[in-house]
Amino acid sequence: MSKHPIPFSTLGRLADPPVISNLMAVALENPSLLSLAAGFTNTQTLPKETVRDAVVQLSTSGKEAEYLQYGTTQGRLGLRKFLSKRLSWQDQHQSPAYHPHNFMLTNGSQQALYLAMQVLCDPGDIVLVESPSYFVFLELLKGLGIEAIGIPVGPTNETDPEGMRDVIRKLKAEGRIERLKAVYLQAWYANPSTRSLTRSNLAALASVLEDEGLELPVLEDGAYRDLYFDEAHPAPSILAMPEWDAFPRLYFGTFTKPFATGLKCGFAVCDHEALRDKMLHIKGHQDFGSAHFPQAILQVVVENGSYDKLLEGLRKSYFGKMQLLHGELLEEGIEELDWSWDMPEGGLYLWLTGPEHLDTSIESEFCKAAVDAGVLYVPGDLCFAPGGPKNCMRLSFGVLNGDDLREAARRLAKVMRDFS
Amino acid sequence: MSKHPIPFSTLGRLADPPVISNLMAVALENPSLLSLAAGFTNTQTLPKETVRDAVVQLSTSGKEAEYLQYGTTQGRLGLRKFLSKRLSWQDQHQSPAYHPHNFMLTNGSQQALYLAMQVLCDPGDIVLVESPSYFVFLELLKGLGIEAIGIPVGPTNETDPEGMRDVIRKLKAEGRIERLKAVYLQAWYANPSTRSLTRSNLAALASVLEDEGLELPVLEDGAYRDLYFDEAHPAPSILAMPEWDAFPRLYFGTFTKPFATGLKCGFAVCDHEALRDKMLHIKGHQDFGSAHFPQAILQVVVENGSYDKLLEGLRKSYFGKMQLLHGELLEEGIEELDWSWDMPEGGLYLWLTGPEHLDTSIESEFCKAAVDAGVLYVPGDLCFAPGGPKNCMRLSFGVLNGDDLREAARRLAKVMRDFS
Repeated sequence: MSKHPIPFSTLGRLADPPVISNLMAVALENPSLLSLAAGFTNTQTLPKETVRDAVVQLSTSGKEAEYLQYGTTQGRLGLRKFLSKRLSWQDQHQSPAYHPHNFMLTNGSQQALYLAMQVLCDPGDIVLVESPSYFVFLELLKGLGIEAIGIPVGPTNETDPEGMRDVIRKLKAEGRIERLKAVYLQAWYANPSTRSLTRSNLAALASVLEDEGLELPVLEDGAYRDLYFDEAHPAPSILAMPEWDAFPRLYFGTFTKPFATGLKCGFAVCDHEALRDKMLHIKGHQDFGSAHFPQAILQVVVENGSYDKLLEGLRKSYFGKMQLLHGELLEEGIEELDWSWDMPEGGLYLWLTGPEHLDTSIESEFCKAAVDAGVLYVPGDLCFAPGGPKNCMRLSFGVLNGDDLREAARRLAKVMRDFS
Repeated sequence: MSKHPIPFSTLGRLADPPVISNLMAVALENPSLLSLAAGFTNTQTLPKETVRDAVVQLSTSGKEAEYLQYGTTQGRLGLRKFLSKRLSWQDQHQSPAYHPHNFMLTNGSQQALYLAMQVLCDPGDIVLVESPSYFVFLELLKGLGIEAIGIPVGPTNETDPEGMRDVIRKLKAEGRIERLKAVYLQAWYANPSTRSLTRSNLAALASVLEDEGLELPVLEDGAYRDLYFDEAHPAPSILAMPEWDAFPRLYFGTFTKPFATGLKCGFAVCDHEALRDKMLHIKGHQDFGSAHFPQAILQVVVENGSYDKLLEGLRKSYFGKMQLLHGELLEEGIEELDWSWDMPEGGLYLWLTGPEHLDTSIESEFCKAAVDAGVLYVPGDLCFAPGGPKNCMRLSFGVLNGDDLREAARRLAKVMRDFS
């Protein structure tokens, strides 16, 4: 029976369907469609045996099944201790910032991003993001009524410190600088740009913010940090950089992409006590702790070394898939049609820029033609703060197998030719 | 190094430590302390083997390890289908309200409660709750800046419809009725009152709301519904009651208490399309789906019947523990000291009311004496909207074993004697 309309809250009124829900619905209706859109991981390499062995080990330890009991809001201490050591080792740096007390385990790093934004921003506030940035984070901001403003890209494809200064000065001139609450960066194989930030780039960003008197909370997303192909990108996290010492720092990481998305375990590290505590208090209201069992499984696999062993294989596997998609696109000759991309050094994506006039956005003729041709991509305009270009796309090589990747590339190239 | 203070958001400023965090800290520091406070489940009866067998079965199915891949924001369809059938069977009722499409799987039912409140209420809005009500829900409301107002208890310990009418008329007189956004009820073995609502009580509540022109969203929490001791409480959910047909209805359930808290899987059913969709959109921003692996495990155990088999044992186990705590308190003679309680028919708690003048609140001398005597309880005042009584307490028999339950009861009775 039909019900009365409800006078929803501000958040309720802001809550819109995900921008790619149409694409997702199309994909569900047509299983022969090949999706280069979804950021899923490779199902073949999911750690079936490793997870099973960990569960069997937990169940035969002879101890109580505490791993099936509630955990804490902050998350399993043993896993936080591991993460503390590992991050400190990755950064080649030791400081109180890495104390396990500063870590929280969340329902994917997404939840930690959400908590941070809840604590820091009211509707109408502003967050600076890279150009492009993670489109699910941009949606999260929109859902909370937060305005994203893009930091321009500089001449060497860096996140431009002087461009950021211009944005800040414009906000000052407009009398809106008080609404600026945080900066969001992805330093490793960013989704979708695949770009990594150099140490000097990161230092220059800190210096401009300091210059402008804005020691704002800074969010650094390391979701793809472990998924390099050959060698780890040399920059440490901002936690290890003295240039960022005066800033409230949040670092985000995850076990989803580098281990198993189905365990949905991410984490945040925060070196600002009040910020960390408030995020935890809100997490207490939201769920008083993420699922404890996946955390216990992860503790087993990180402690017995299977996590790192699996990662080695995963890196090779994704490297191979990236080369395959990259190679197929080259072979299809789309470079000559004015499509370009950087060969990534890690992550799960290719980021393509097409001819300047071309519109690949979700309502475009190009996008419809791609769906008709049986291939999906993430329209690049979704990855920019309002006003960004419309001629880009994100292609994921995570989930499709080799043959399907090749076929998807061929289908996409045909559409590109048709629109050239 | 010390950081600048951050100008937190409205939510950030509202985020306070959990009210029982002091008690929790005391418990951590003193392991010899016996806690009748924590709502944990019995560690001995946690389904170690069942979970292990389900994981082994999943891993040897020969199919792809899709259960380790991302799930959907709404949750695993197979499990939602089971829940749809089961709830319809429990309610002995069939209607479109039970369609799997109306179900969402969440990080405990707590997350579903949080999502509902985010969608329905702005800071300053009002929700009607029972007296007493679930203290973690009351904290959630406080954290979102929502005011809880208690519905009085009637002469037969029911949630009093005419008392609710008085509250509503008072809000109308104060010009605040527009801020009233929802009603929250617990119909089965409520936490902490242990009370169940009869069908006629529920119908009368609907009738008063309708009378007063308030077809508000109603939240019915069935967290303990499966945990009856002997026979299931006969009332169906509000989804099955025509008296509630005109209201947007939300029903909340969970696998945490009746199966394993560590899997942290709860659910909500919502028969108001826009409300359900908006909750899902916000969940999309919060975590785009709870952990998929626990959902897959649960689907195995509900489909192969081990869930219901385990429940049988669990009911007996908790019935025994309830009788033990109940019996020990009787034996200690605290009834003669003016302490009273109803013997519950399900759930994990006893709800004790003490002498009228006694203050058992968290800062009270009584509470301090209990901690000194080595026993913890949940102070009852935390379970009331502001202005409630201070002479109650919630005792949980979920987690302690028999000997510890007896000893905890003896310690508590001694304090009661000292304060009589």
